[in-house]
Amino acid sequence: MVGKHCILELYGCDQYKLNDEAFVRTSLTAASKIAGAKLLNMITHRFQPQGITGLALLAESHISIHTWPESRYAAIDVFTCGNQTMPEKACNLLAREFGAKSNLLKSFIRDTPHHMEDLTRNP
Amino acid sequence: MVGKHCILELYGCDQYKLNDEAFVRTSLTAASKIAGAKLLNMITHRFQPQGITGLALLAESHISIHTWPESRYAAIDVFTCGNQTMPEKACNLLAREFGAKSNLLKSFIRDTPHHMEDLTRNP
Repeated sequence: MVGKHCILELYGCDQYKLNDEAFVRTSLTAASKIAGAKLLNMITHRFQPQGITGLALLAESHISIHTWPESRYAAIDVFTCGNQTMPEKACNLLAREFGAKSNLLKSFIRDTPHHMEDLTRNP
Repeated sequence: MVGKHCILELYGCDQYKLNDEAFVRTSLTAASKIAGAKLLNMITHRFQPQGITGLALLAESHISIHTWPESRYAAIDVFTCGNQTMPEKACNLLAREFGAKSNLLKSFIRDTPHHMEDLTRNP
């Protein structure tokens, strides 16, 4: 089990998309799929006067998004476990979907115990 | 708006607590409270043959936990926004609750746009 974690900041996004709860849900679903992950559950919340949070529970860990439409900004995490997932693809899709003018992506490997590399489990 | 993100690895935890979905939910609730955050929603999932994922949606961002009881390991994120929250307190509580023999904590400030510092919003 290798845990790859991507920390993604999106700048200059489309304000309307950042404040559209249905669009956020659709984007999280698409991001899960393109990452090669299995989406098991999702919750979203719309803040007042604006802003959305979305949390996607994956068989392979999670994707989170927090949006600030007034700043055209979104803070995203894509954390996936296993050698078959591609979290960077999810990051690229989300940057494109929200129309980000620029982004900052930091990726790292989680410090999992060494003997976990061969572990598997089912949803 | 300042976004503080804690990446926490817990090692040598209590296997039974790591596989107890109700205990995970109670711990996430307590962690939200001690961090000074408002818990708005939570989802958990129990894997087969073992392992739990829990995602807590906060007014101030999120807490996530993924457990591997067979490795006595948990991967945790505590991401909180605003100057009033204390994500490190949530990390300390979770390490204690799961009986971690050791842990690895990395904290960093998210790269939010500078003009966001004074933004506030309501659940």
